[in-house]
Parts: sequence; C-alpha cells; structure tokens
Amino acid sequence: MPVGYVQIPVGIAGPLLINGREYSVPMATTEGCLVASTNRGCKAIHLSGGATSTLLRDGMTRAPVVRFGTAKRAADLKLYLEDPDNFDTLAVVFNRSSRFGRLQGIKCAIAGKNLYLRFTCTTGDAMGMNMVSKGVQNVLDFLQTDFPDMDVMGLSGNFCSDKKPAAVNWIEGRGKSVVCEAIIKGGIVRKVLKTTVESLVELNMLKNLTGSAMAGALGGFNAHASNIVTAVYIATGQDPAQNVESSHCITMMEAVNDGKDLHISVTMPSIEVGTVGGGTQLASQSACLNLLGVKGASKESAGANSRMLAAVVAGAVLAGELSLMSALAAGQLVKSHMKYNRSNKDVSKASS
Amino acid sequence: MPVGYVQIPVGIAGPLLINGREYSVPMATTEGCLVASTNRGCKAIHLSGGATSTLLRDGMTRAPVVRFGTAKRAADLKLYLEDPDNFDTLAVVFNRSSRFGRLQGIKCAIAGKNLYLRFTCTTGDAMGMNMVSKGVQNVLDFLQTDFPDMDVMGLSGNFCSDKKPAAVNWIEGRGKSVVCEAIIKGGIVRKVLKTTVESLVELNMLKNLTGSAMAGALGGFNAHASNIVTAVYIATGQDPAQNVESSHCITMMEAVNDGKDLHISVTMPSIEVGTVGGGTQLASQSACLNLLGVKGASKESAGANSRMLAAVVAGAVLAGELSLMSALAAGQLVKSHMKYNRSNKDVSKASS
Amino acid sequence: MPVGYVQIPVGIAGPLLINGREYSVPMATTEGCLVASTNRGCKAIHLSGGATSTLLRDGMTRAPVVRFGTAKRAADLKLYLEDPDNFDTLAVVFNRSSRFGRLQGIKCAIAGKNLYLRFTCTTGDAMGMNMVSKGVQNVLDFLQTDFPDMDVMGLSGNFCSDKKPAAVNWIEGRGKSVVCEAIIKGGIVRKVLKTTVESLVELNMLKNLTGSAMAGALGGFNAHASNIVTAVYIATGQDPAQNVESSHCITMMEAVNDGKDLHISVTMPSIEVGTVGGGTQLASQSACLNLLGVKGASKESAGANSRMLAAVVAGAVLAGELSLMSALAAGQLVKSHMKYNRSNKDVSKASS
Amino acid sequence: MPVGYVQIPVGIAGPLLINGREYSVPMATTEGCLVASTNRGCKAIHLSGGATSTLLRDGMTRAPVVRFGTAKRAADLKLYLEDPDNFDTLAVVFNRSSRFGRLQGIKCAIAGKNLYLRFTCTTGDAMGMNMVSKGVQNVLDFLQTDFPDMDVMGLSGNFCSDKKPAAVNWIEGRGKSVVCEAIIKGGIVRKVLKTTVESLVELNMLKNLTGSAMAGALGGFNAHASNIVTAVYIATGQDPAQNVESSHCITMMEAVNDGKDLHISVTMPSIEVGTVGGGTQLASQSACLNLLGVKGASKESAGANSRMLAAVVAGAVLAGELSLMSALAAGQLVKSHMKYNRSNKDVSKASS
Repeated sequence: MPVGYVQIPVGIAGPLLINGREYSVPMATTEGCLVASTNRGCKAIHLSGGATSTLLRDGMTRAPVVRFGTAKRAADLKLYLEDPDNFDTLAVVFNRSSRFGRLQGIKCAIAGKNLYLRFTCTTGDAMGMNMVSKGVQNVLDFLQTDFPDMDVMGLSGNFCSDKKPAAVNWIEGRGKSVVCEAIIKGGIVRKVLKTTVESLVELNMLKNLTGSAMAGALGGFNAHASNIVTAVYIATGQDPAQNVESSHCITMMEAVNDGKDLHISVTMPSIEVGTVGGGTQLASQSACLNLLGVKGASKESAGANSRMLAAVVAGAVLAGELSLMSALAAGQLVKSHMKYNRSNKDVSKASS
Repeated sequence: MPVGYVQIPVGIAGPLLINGREYSVPMATTEGCLVASTNRGCKAIHLSGGATSTLLRDGMTRAPVVRFGTAKRAADLKLYLEDPDNFDTLAVVFNRSSRFGRLQGIKCAIAGKNLYLRFTCTTGDAMGMNMVSKGVQNVLDFLQTDFPDMDVMGLSGNFCSDKKPAAVNWIEGRGKSVVCEAIIKGGIVRKVLKTTVESLVELNMLKNLTGSAMAGALGGFNAHASNIVTAVYIATGQDPAQNVESSHCITMMEAVNDGKDLHISVTMPSIEVGTVGGGTQLASQSACLNLLGVKGASKESAGANSRMLAAVVAGAVLAGELSLMSALAAGQLVKSHMKYNRSNKDVSKASS
Repeated sequence: MPVGYVQIPVGIAGPLLINGREYSVPMATTEGCLVASTNRGCKAIHLSGGATSTLLRDGMTRAPVVRFGTAKRAADLKLYLEDPDNFDTLAVVFNRSSRFGRLQGIKCAIAGKNLYLRFTCTTGDAMGMNMVSKGVQNVLDFLQTDFPDMDVMGLSGNFCSDKKPAAVNWIEGRGKSVVCEAIIKGGIVRKVLKTTVESLVELNMLKNLTGSAMAGALGGFNAHASNIVTAVYIATGQDPAQNVESSHCITMMEAVNDGKDLHISVTMPSIEVGTVGGGTQLASQSACLNLLGVKGASKESAGANSRMLAAVVAGAVLAGELSLMSALAAGQLVKSHMKYNRSNKDVSKASS
Repeated sequence: MPVGYVQIPVGIAGPLLINGREYSVPMATTEGCLVASTNRGCKAIHLSGGATSTLLRDGMTRAPVVRFGTAKRAADLKLYLEDPDNFDTLAVVFNRSSRFGRLQGIKCAIAGKNLYLRFTCTTGDAMGMNMVSKGVQNVLDFLQTDFPDMDVMGLSGNFCSDKKPAAVNWIEGRGKSVVCEAIIKGGIVRKVLKTTVESLVELNMLKNLTGSAMAGALGGFNAHASNIVTAVYIATGQDPAQNVESSHCITMMEAVNDGKDLHISVTMPSIEVGTVGGGTQLASQSACLNLLGVKGASKESAGANSRMLAAVVAGAVLAGELSLMSALAAGQLVKSHMKYNRSNKDVSKASS
C-alpha cells in the first residue's frame, strides 16, 4: 500500500535519569539542535541526582453521542449510568471485548436531548483507542434493550476528545497522567545552564504562566513540550497526531532550599502512548523502543512498559523545558549585560 | 549527529482537485487506513467538480515579553507602537534582517507592567520562525534607545503562540489562514460516501459543533484534522510539533440546493508551512514536495509555493473530514437498521 | 453600615409553566424590554404545554491549594484522597461542620508540588459557599496529622472556581446542574414568535454554536442567558457576582415532528442559588422568593426549595432564549423581505 | 410596567486615590464584608500614595453574522472590508447613525461561507450597545448593494461577544481596556494588610495564575474581580449582566525595591460602562454617579466621564484584590503558626 518512506533523522538524548534508572531517549526530528538542547537538560538533571516521575492515572477514553426524544430521557440514561450497580453490569459487558480493557468509569455530558458518554478504561500496554471503541460498542448494543429510544448518532461525539485541544482532557486526563520533577542545584544552573535560579523562576512566571494566560492558552503553560513529545512519538512509533493533547503541560519552577536551588516540574495529564500495536511494530521504531527497554507487552505487569514510556516522555519534556528556558533566560541576560554596548549583533535563537 | 533514521510509510491520496488543479497528496503515517479514507474523500470531491481554497491571510508571528517599572510605562510603549509613523520606522528596522520578512503589524497585550508584543510578518516561502525572530531582535535593540527602561525578559513570551493551543492563534491566525470548500452532490454522498446529506449535516452539528463545545474545545471543531495535517507535514518536511495549532479547524456542513447537495468547508487559521529550509531539504521530503510541485522558493511570486502547500493541506483535511464523518454517519445508520437484529457483531471503526 | 439603597425595578414574567406548575418570575432589571421579551417566551412555552426541567446534579465546591516539598508527596495525598476508605473518614470530619453539608467527592489537580483539592458537597437550601468552606477547613486540619509536611497556601486556589469563567465548572458543574426543555408547536412559533422553526434552528447553529466557537467562548453557547440569570438573581437575593458561571449555558434547537415543531433546550451546569441566608433575608428579595413559593428552608425535603429556584432560573432562561432568538430571526426575515425596498429605516433591536 | 422595586444596600469604600484624585466608591451588595474589605484595600493604596490607572483602548463592539453561497464570496467581503479605502466609505455610513459613534475598525472571522463582522466604535459617555447596533445596521444595508448575495442572518452572531465568556473579548477588548496599578509599601502590607510581600507574591502565583490555569480559566486570573465589578455596576446603574466579561481580569503581584515593596496591578480589557442612558437615569443610581462626580455626558470631552468610571471600577478591583488576597495569605499564615496548636477553631473566611 505505501508507495515509499520518508526518513526522519534520529538523535539520542541522555542518559536521562528517572526514578533511579538511565534511559537513552531517541528523538526523531529534522531540527538537530532540539536533541542537543534536550541533551543539555538531561545532563543538568543527571548531575543533580535525577528526576522523579509519578503516575497519576492511566486510562484511554472514547465518548459516543446518543440522542433521545427529550432531555428528560437523556437524563434518565445519565442517572442509570451513575448507579453503581448498573455500572458493574456494564463493566462486564464492556470487558468482554478485550483481555486488557477494563472499564474504569463513564462521565456524562448533556446538551439538551443529546448525551455524550465518556468511557475510560485501562488498556494494558496498548495506546488503546481500538480497545476502548470495541468496549463502547458492546455497551451501546447492550443499552439498546433497556433504552430502545436511544439513537446512537456517532461512536465518537468529540467529548473523548481525540486530537483536538479540549478542556476535558486537560482536567480529566486521557491516557497516562504524569508529573515529573527534579531539583536542580544552583551550581548546575549556573555552570551547565548558564543562567540563575532567580532568572528561571521569573521567566517561567512571565512566559509559561502569564504569557499563556494572556494568549488564552488551554493546557499550554509550557515553553515547547510539543517539540519533545513529537520527536519521541515519531521515534517510538506513537501517533504524532495525538501530540495535540499529549503535549498539554504546565511547567512549574520554584526556588527551594532558601533560594539556592531550582525545583522544576512538568505536569502532563494526557500522554497517549503504547508499546504494542500500530507504528510500534515497524523496524526502526521497534529498535527505538528496544533502546528504551520498553518494547512490547510487559511480561511482569500489564501496562508497565507503556507507563514507563510515558515517564520517559515526561522526563524528556522536563529536560527540554529546563534547557530552552535557560537559553531564553541566558540570552536575555547577555542582552541585559550588553545593553549599553550596542555593537552586539548576535541573535538569540529560540524554538518556542 | 543523527545516529540513524526512522522510516515512516508514505501513501498517496488523490488526485485532489483544488482550484482547478490536481494534486497527488503524500501522507506519511503508520495508519494505512488514513490514506485510504482521505483518498475516498478526494474521490467524492473530484466527482463533484473539485474544491475551492481561499487564502485569508499570511504571516508568521513571534511575541517577546518586555518589562517596565510600571504599567504606565508599558502602556507608553504600546501607544508608541500603535502610532502609524512609528510603525513605519520600526518596519524599516525589522525588514533589514531578511530579504523576505516584511513586518505587517504588532499586536500588544499588557499584564500589569509586562508587555507582550506579537509581531507578524510575511516570510516568503519559508515557514519563517527564524526570520521573524531576527526581525524582532532588531526592533527590540532599536527600541532600547527610546525606552532604556525596557527590560527584555524573553524573546518569546508565549503570546506568539508557538506549539501551544491558544485562542490568540485561533482568532488572529498564525502562518496561513485558509478556508477550503466543496459542494458534494447528493448522489455522490450516497454512492461514494454511503450516507446522506441530512445525516452528515446532523452529525456535524452534534459532534463537531456541540460535542466540542461540551468538551471545552479551543479551535477543535472538527473530526480529525490533526491526522491529515500531521501526515502531510511529516511527508513534506514540515515541523509536526506545530500541528497543535496548525490543525485548528472548524468543519461546517450545510445542505444546499434545496437540501439535495452538501456544502462542506474547513476553516483553518494557523497553517504553518514552508517549502524552503528545515526538513524540506531532506531527500525523501524533498521528493514529496516535488510530487506536489511546490518544492523550493517560487520563482514567480515569493511565497506562492508555501501558500499552495497550505491550500493542499486544507484540501486534504476537507477530504479527510468528509470521509471520516461519512464513515461515522454510515456506521450508525447501519446500526440503526440493525437495531432489531441483534446478531450484528461488526464494530464501526473510527479514528477520532 | 449601608449608607443607603439603590432601587432596581422589578417586573414579573409569566406564568412560566414548568413541570406542571405555574410560576410568576420576578426580574430586577433596568431594561424593561427584557421582562417583556421573557414574558413572550413564557407565553409560547405555556401555549405549547409547558417546559420540563431536570436536575442533573447538586453540589457546591471549594478548592484550597496546598503545597508539598515534592510532586511525589502531592501525589501521595491525591492517592490517599482517592481511596474510598479514606474518603469515608474524611466525610465524617467534613460533615461535622454543618447539619446540611454532606461531602460528595474530592477532585484533585496537581501542578508540580502544588495540589488543588476541589471538594463538592450538598448544602440543603443554602447556596452553600460558607458551609463548604467550613467543612474544607475541618478536613485540612485533620489531614495535617497524617501529612505534617502539607502547607495550606490558600483556602481557595481558584480550582473551585468561584466567579471566574473556568472550564472546570462547565465540565464538572457547580451548584445545581439543570437541563430545561420544551417543544414549541410550529403554529406558536409563527403566531407568537413571528418566525419559523427552520429559521430558529439555522440561527441557533450559526450564532449560538458556530459564532461562539469562533469567538473562543467557554460555556457561552447561548444568546443572552446572563440577562435573565442576573435579573432573577437580583430579584431573589442571590449573589449576582456569581452569574459569571451561573449563566454558563448551551442552547440547543432542533426541528422535531417531521420538522413541524421546535425542540428547544438550555443546559446550565452551574446555577448557584439558595433560598436561605445572604440576600434572601432582605424584605423585597424575600417577597420575591415568596411570590415563587420557594422562600426559606424546605420543610419537606432539604434543598427542595433551592432546587426549585434553579429550575425557575433555567426555565426563565429558556423563555428568554426563545424570545430573543425569535426577534433576531424575525428581524432578519423582515430585512430579507425588504431587501429590494430600501425605504426601510427601522432598526432591529437586539440585546445580545 | 415594573410592579415594584428591590432594594440593594449601598456601602461606600474609600477614599480611593487614583491618578491623584480621591473617589468615594458606592458598592451595592448584600454582603457587607465586601465593602469593608474593599475599604481596607483603598486604605492601603492611599497610604502608599495612590493608584495609577491607564486607559489602553475604548470601543464598543457588535458582530452580525452574514451568509453567502460560498466561502469564496465570504472571503471577498472580508477582503473588501480590509481595504482602507472601503473602510473610509463605510465609516461615513456607520457614523451617520449617531453623534458620538465613530467606527474604529471591523474584524472578520470566517466559518465556511458564514462571515462574522466585529465592528468597534467609540460611543462617547454611553455604554454604547444601541449606538453600535444602529451603525452596524446602516453598514449592512449599504453593503447589500455591492453584495446582493449577502444574507444577513442575525444582527448579533456571538462574535461580539456580549455577556458570554469569550476569548475574543479577552484578547481584543470590549468597552474600556484599563490597567490599574499601585506600589504598596512593605510596612503597609504588614500593618494594614497583616501579611508579607513574599506571601502575597507567592499566593498570587499559586492561586490567580496557576490555579486558574489548572481550572481552564478564560480571563479569570484574579481572586474576586466579579464581586467588585458587580457591586459598582449595580450602584451606578450599569448592566450587571455584562459583568461576565467586564470582570475579566489578570491580577499581577511582583516584589519591587529589592523585595521590600509590592507592585500590584489589575489588567481589565472589557469594562463596559456608561454615564448616560439606561439605568444611570434612575434616582438612586444617578446619586451614586454624582457621588463619583461622573454623572451624565462630559462637557469637556466626550467619553471622559465613562472613562473615569472605568478607572474607578479598575481601582476598586485593585483594592478588592489586595484585601482579599491578604486575608487569604494571612489566614494561612495564622494556620501555619497554629499548626501544632490544634485547639484552633477559627475558620478563615474567603469569598472567592
């Protein structure tokens, strides 16, 4: 079917030290300096003792839209779904469709007589969109008996929400929700990152918090999470079209230890990754997953590989944020120093 | 520097008929059915006489953040920048940095004593981020003389807004703003797309408008624009990390000609593409641009190639929306027909 | 303490027929035509058999922000709160603070090492902000024993979210979530509302769905819900500052009964009202509550009065949407008829 | 027409010192502590030398929606409107409708074949909604000659955007855009506000910036702007239904003078006020405007009174933010001090 291939250069950033383990992070990008920049961030993290990544939730979603004759009837179904006993029954129906997909919850939104049902389920080491879709179809078929007046209008009603920037993902999460953090020593900030803790904290407040607020951002409170997410996704056979929400990220920087050191974190609620199926099976992508040690289904614990991949994505974003923000802050420090020396012709580069 | 390459399969959708010209659209994706689906949309468009793409604006942006001692002073600079005479002077300064970059405007946002200046400029056939950054740096250096109390805090203050979902791009546009439309004959809707005009119009209202509204979407009023944008971007050497805002899209469907035919359109305000520089120079990506006939800088009119590429992106999204929405609508029609025939075990597939 | 009073004129719209009962709706507004317009909507609803209002949820929220030394520790507390056993314990602690406040759930959001805990509780017939704040304080005090490293930074961390437009309210709800609907006969649309079902459906799609999408609206998919919410709030002693989120509303219009009749609905997730406490005790406001028959605490069922008031608010919004949308549609129909008769000097009035 | 009146208690906060002039600010609210709290903020501002308010823009908006047969034609009108020569002609047509309304600009948004035209105009001392609506109608009538295929679908298409939370107002502004600031001496922060500069700066970052970001806020980066806006609006005869967007506000706090003092600002892009027409003519509301010295049309400079009222609104919000944030910060400081003294039964009150 394919008429050929495009080749995307792959660079390696790292070692990235997360939760006591080192990872070599493959990044597929046509922008070489992105790898170098992320690498610098990895170095600063490593020298500071590594990063800690914590999983907050794990579940893929799909939300069909169904319609009734009245809003009252749509509300009846909503109430039915919120009854714990009914949920148990529906979970059995849902779970039949797959060995790994386990229904976690159903969140409803009503718009008049139309009901959007956002199903969430665990998906093992798969990204899980097909898995959840099958389970959803099972449940819809089952519900038709008790709610014969329910018209299924679409298997996806955009309340999922796949590949669109939407608050529901930012607030509820989709795929893996991860927070990753590190404390960077003040000396490392100066020597490796060429800036100061104070400058970074200030720039983070002005750019990632305030600037994004002014721009009317949704989940975009970061410098360039999308760059790193996309590069790792392409290298490891993920769906890069999902980086729309997978790169939702708030980057926080706070001075700690009496202002000497930097606490930096990235909180990412919607990392949609898998280590089986889809593009992960292609040769070069498979090799990249092997390099990370997360290829295929985990034999020890279902989902462990994909969760580890999510941790790597977040960790790489942490490194990328640290490095670009430092470059921006340092560039401006240089500017500031040269303020009265107008011979300066250098131009600070910034990707985001 | 790169340690190797990942290979992404490329399929060809088309011919896509836009503004009277046929294009073979290369799509790099690991999901084969995406190409087939887009192809079906192209066929329906072709049989209906083709699509029309219209450019609404063209300009890349960059927004530094500067700080003053008081909001009053920040407002002084804002007023200075809004004075047409001053703007002319600054345009001369800005335009020195490049042959193609021509300053179009500066939009200001104030948050207390911090000012965000969103510069917009034409960029020829380049995507233009570096071009605009250089011009911005020139202007900031120049302004320092009249505003010595201005502290440049960051060359990017996230009001740009690059690779983050932000209302400023949705409302003001970034890169190319394009609307692409077609009228699909009722017969084509039935024979090629296996559904009806009425079903499509209804599903579009329930999913792309209402469902996205319920999800708190920002510029995400479509079915799966991101899928097509990402695949064409990777194939043609664009920056796939920009698909966050490049895939902002509202898909509209209305019945026309007394309800017999379908008017479908996609409005995309932030298509960020170039045909020179960056990943466009790699061999396979370059070949894909050649296939489209838009490789390199246009010799006839600066920017014509990149604008044509933007039209192709929008046209491919139009085809993709048409096809997936039809599949969703038809799947549900089938379901509806089988409502009382519970032997149905087929599961409708949907990518978004 | 007060130096005096301002007087706001009160008009009565109605009878508004909801769930088989008639209400005279007091509206305090300086714009007289608002009452007249709402009244016309009430008439159309009444002639069509009345509206049906359905309660979807009922709970007030408050979200303090607490800080830890690490994100890992913040996640520990999040996991602790999500354990059903712990929740039961915390509910006991929370519920001590009031006779009516019953903890329903705690929803967590993490931003690095900062945790936002959104508590939801029932509040009887009170709007309930003070009630929930007291319960939250009890829980925070209690948690300090097991989490001595938790720093309470603020009793409100804006994830509540009170008096700010925020997606969390739009998606999760705050106060009463209500959907109210009616089927307006085609004949009534023509005779009372001077327009057609088709025109209304079309205008609703173009204005309330598409126009709001283009504007980057958040929960603002309606014509003028805020007008009605504010007028009823002021008349009945509610907090009009809360109309920011109380007027979140999506108005849907669909043709039913083979296109002859109109199904109209308003879905409002965040109606924050009470019938005891605050401004409800003032003489004139108290009289307005009496007029509606919802003054004070319900003796039959705690919360019944405030829920009925929420139904009235939604019903009045339904009437207001119906009337203004009809005026807009009719005004334009007139225009359309007069297209070739340029003597027309009349100007259609529209409040929103 | 009105059957009666509700009475809202009015308190006076102040003197509020703005731009060297003292104002007694009337606030109509049923919550007495709101006036006391705002008053404390006024005191802190006064003792620190007063606040400075700066007007950034001034223009009311209205956006009709029109429809064409194709998106191409909608784009034709957009390009026509963006031509400076055409704009001059349209301005003459628009300006005929009123003595004060002067067309400033037309901003277009396209959704397929539907065009939303956001007109902005000066409105003298009126809030100006009727004024702009009339001018818009004139222009639409005029355009019909050159664009006979243009169908006016609604005089308001929600891209205005009136009484709905929408990014277009947050980014473009509506009514008066104002920034108001003050530098509060460290000693005043301690003595009057009972907290510290450092605590305020930290809480502002955690609550007003980060907490609102987590909540998916739109223009809601403040503690309780809506409380103050609503109270002043009701007292002075403004339209309190407009507080939805009038209370859009970002509150910034930064330590200045080597960390000793606090720079606080509120930036409010959409303050919609007038000193003539509507509710301003009622007796008690008129008295409140007199108290502020801004009643009626300014005789010196058209619009001066309404702009001064906008400055007062912003200044009162500044005072309110300062006071509530201090109460929250202090409450938590107290908590912190009492951490190991569990006899504490006091509950910090917070309105937002």
